[in-house]
Amino acid sequence: MSKTNPGNFFEDFSVGQVLRHATPRTVTEGDRAVYGSLYPTRFAVPSSAQFAASVGLDPHPVEELVAFHVAFGKTVPDISLNAVANLGYAECRFHRPVLPGDTLSTTSEVIGLKQNSNGRSGVVYVRSTATNQRGEVALDWARWVMVHKRDPEAPAPETVVPELAAAVAAEDLVLPTGLDFTDYDFAAAGEPHRFDDYEVGEKIDHVDGVTLTESEHQQATRLWQNTAKVHFNAQARPDGRQLIYGGHVISMARALSFNGLANAQLIAAINAGAHTAPAFAGDTVYAWSEVLDKAETSAPGVGALRLRLVATRDRDESMTLRDAETGKHAAGVLLDLDYWALIPR
Amino acid sequence: MSKTNPGNFFEDFSVGQVLRHATPRTVTEGDRAVYGSLYPTRFAVPSSAQFAASVGLDPHPVEELVAFHVAFGKTVPDISLNAVANLGYAECRFHRPVLPGDTLSTTSEVIGLKQNSNGRSGVVYVRSTATNQRGEVALDWARWVMVHKRDPEAPAPETVVPELAAAVAAEDLVLPTGLDFTDYDFAAAGEPHRFDDYEVGEKIDHVDGVTLTESEHQQATRLWQNTAKVHFNAQARPDGRQLIYGGHVISMARALSFNGLANAQLIAAINAGAHTAPAFAGDTVYAWSEVLDKAETSAPGVGALRLRLVATRDRDESMTLRDAETGKHAAGVLLDLDYWALIPR
Amino acid sequence: MSKTNPGNFFEDFSVGQVLRHATPRTVTEGDRAVYGSLYPTRFAVPSSAQFAASVGLDPHPVEELVAFHVAFGKTVPDISLNAVANLGYAECRFHRPVLPGDTLSTTSEVIGLKQNSNGRSGVVYVRSTATNQRGEVALDWARWVMVHKRDPEAPAPETVVPELAAAVAAEDLVLPTGLDFTDYDFAAAGEPHRFDDYEVGEKIDHVDGVTLTESEHQQATRLWQNTAKVHFNAQARPDGRQLIYGGHVISMARALSFNGLANAQLIAAINAGAHTAPAFAGDTVYAWSEVLDKAETSAPGVGALRLRLVATRDRDESMTLRDAETGKHAAGVLLDLDYWALIPR
Repeated sequence: MSKTNPGNFFEDFSVGQVLRHATPRTVTEGDRAVYGSLYPTRFAVPSSAQFAASVGLDPHPVEELVAFHVAFGKTVPDISLNAVANLGYAECRFHRPVLPGDTLSTTSEVIGLKQNSNGRSGVVYVRSTATNQRGEVALDWARWVMVHKRDPEAPAPETVVPELAAAVAAEDLVLPTGLDFTDYDFAAAGEPHRFDDYEVGEKIDHVDGVTLTESEHQQATRLWQNTAKVHFNAQARPDGRQLIYGGHVISMARALSFNGLANAQLIAAINAGAHTAPAFAGDTVYAWSEVLDKAETSAPGVGALRLRLVATRDRDESMTLRDAETGKHAAGVLLDLDYWALIPR
Repeated sequence: MSKTNPGNFFEDFSVGQVLRHATPRTVTEGDRAVYGSLYPTRFAVPSSAQFAASVGLDPHPVEELVAFHVAFGKTVPDISLNAVANLGYAECRFHRPVLPGDTLSTTSEVIGLKQNSNGRSGVVYVRSTATNQRGEVALDWARWVMVHKRDPEAPAPETVVPELAAAVAAEDLVLPTGLDFTDYDFAAAGEPHRFDDYEVGEKIDHVDGVTLTESEHQQATRLWQNTAKVHFNAQARPDGRQLIYGGHVISMARALSFNGLANAQLIAAINAGAHTAPAFAGDTVYAWSEVLDKAETSAPGVGALRLRLVATRDRDESMTLRDAETGKHAAGVLLDLDYWALIPR
Repeated sequence: MSKTNPGNFFEDFSVGQVLRHATPRTVTEGDRAVYGSLYPTRFAVPSSAQFAASVGLDPHPVEELVAFHVAFGKTVPDISLNAVANLGYAECRFHRPVLPGDTLSTTSEVIGLKQNSNGRSGVVYVRSTATNQRGEVALDWARWVMVHKRDPEAPAPETVVPELAAAVAAEDLVLPTGLDFTDYDFAAAGEPHRFDDYEVGEKIDHVDGVTLTESEHQQATRLWQNTAKVHFNAQARPDGRQLIYGGHVISMARALSFNGLANAQLIAAINAGAHTAPAFAGDTVYAWSEVLDKAETSAPGVGALRLRLVATRDRDESMTLRDAETGKHAAGVLLDLDYWALIPR
């Protein structure tokens, strides 16, 4: 028993602590294919090497979310194996495309700690950085997660709550080297809507729904070497249900958003994210988006849309984010994600 | 809502109209592996790069049905999103092998229209052509599909019904450049039966059955970026059942046909195809074949068999295609496919 | 019917007979990705090309079990299509890493026969050898399987029972050329435990469990082109249940063993293996290991652990292999595998 990983508990973390996560993982064309079998993704850049090259991306990058899930999965055994809940993300930036053949490794630094008033758990804030085999940063992000204490009697650490930006500033977005949407082929990409066609405040119902299965979410989550027990083991929860990895819902919603946002080709940053309700096999997931902000960028022909991406259980044509009475996320909202996408101008 | 794709309705089509479908897609070794996890395919050419090279195919092509599904999937959002039924295929020819790294794009031309007498739908005939990144034709085919009208009051178009060949003539088959079965290794391929061992009229019961699951058909269909709602969304049909993509049954039957047709290595053409009954998860699919015709070809050692491939729900050892009383396809027949295969002489 | 493969029956085998199995199969990065979606594997060597290169393995090999399943799958149509039970493995050695792009072919020689006293079946012993496209041996193993007779009246063959080693001797292990654990990165690999930290007799509860699904085991088994009907066809057994391929449990247990044996990077040999109870979808599989032996090797920094890997239905923290009363495998034990792993010293 002593050789197995019990995961870290709240009192195992200290501010400034650096955790180097196992195990490095090489991303391949196989991952692109499996991803495409699990999510209805159709964005032209990750779908077509030829299209990607036509906008300056050669070799052919995988989707940012592939990189995110791989990099995030590394952190689970050390950060969230004993988590009660994944509370939020902030300041996630994609620094360079991840290419087949790249090997990702992830390191995390503890940037905050706050014990809960019940004394049985606390919130751990980490900043995680994934690098490729050349040591270049591929992406980084902050995350906070509620973690059990091993011993409720263990003393509370000094409370440190890091200041995290509500959103990545448009001028801090990192654009892939060479990205150029000047000769963007809208017909090939699937929709005519460009940067100027979207208005702040506009909402888009992405219409399509996908019914989740027990096999598919496990295959996805396993592909990222995510080891959280509740996803794979029907005996891990008293109700015998397998909780679906929140990232599965992120990828599903992002893929569904193609229908109305087909030209939002690349994710440049994730500003915030909350998994507001659990998802289970049998749920039918829909998505809608809201345009939160718009910004120009320095890359030729490239604009940035700040989008709220909302996944719901069952379709909500009213696109209601919050319950009017309680102010909390409306019943049925599974995901509330805030991100920057790059789109042709 | 206005930014999402509502699909085309019957009155949106006009004869001569050309639709350029989104989104181009690069085929990779990942697709071959996922395909192999979903279908019990064992044909030596797509299974082994070494075997393929030994018959003149180097680099290592993927199965023709991988190319077909990818190319077909492109057409769904524009042609059949509002389809009532996929009525048939004709004149499908594979013009050159598709190799890992190839990017396929598909274009369709409307070649016929015929409003139904009920005024609420009509039949759309299209000829679709998939090209690779060099603009070379990879495959083309005709297809007709019954599509809803948006407005039953919309006037009927002039009826144009294209003349489509009952079968691709043997002399019109395109053989892969370099294909040579002279030194074909029957032991490696798995069966001794060659061109001369098959007789017109002969039927082969392929014996094996596969029970379909909800996850696998969705993964397959999603891999092809097929967006038809009924396959993925349990809420799309009143009965809550997810209709299985007809192409899933085609690939399953083709893979099952290995047992008795192991040397029918390549599909050169699909002459006709009908999805005669819906398939659902839980169904156990079997297949049988009938030799319809035989032809010599110009490639060394290569013959062509015209085969009827029939998929059934539950095994039918009697191999009955049509109900003796009604003349319609027998209950349990899911697929009636007519194709040309290339086999060593 | 006559063209399909009925499989061999007991009386079709003779000692000394050599069977060359169809069909050769090329292993790719796609297989690595699909494997990673089906098993929670995290061993650093197969996970990371960079890590593999750092221990002398470049290009990046796939897991030994990928090679085993592919090579084993080839033998099913000829050896075990009419099997009652797979009785055991012995003397399995991995002779060289299998790399993406390698094509594996398998040949078997019948090395023993023993008719059962009931006259209706018998045990067939084979030694199988998988070679790559250069004719180099990738792995070989002995296996014995109980096979039905076609005709119970057929005369019994002379009984020949081969002598098979209880275990591969440590000095007979083949180490991958260039393997060097001198600069092994324990932090990247995920655990600090090295050769000297394991003691003979030590047991390790791997803690984690995975609930099996109908789709995943079929995808895995199909990936290896294994054609045994009971895995795929719910109509093949009177109880309508689909028997899970024993190799699925081997791979699951091996992947689960990462938690406590993360540095047991490579499988050098399989000494023995028994599938002691059937597994079905819905079962939750756990694993524990016992250190049976230890040995030094000639490769720099590389030690060998002989391990018993036990998979159980439901967790057995007592790690009981055999029922105290009957001496048989305890209820719940699915797999009893004995293998040599290579680990840094």
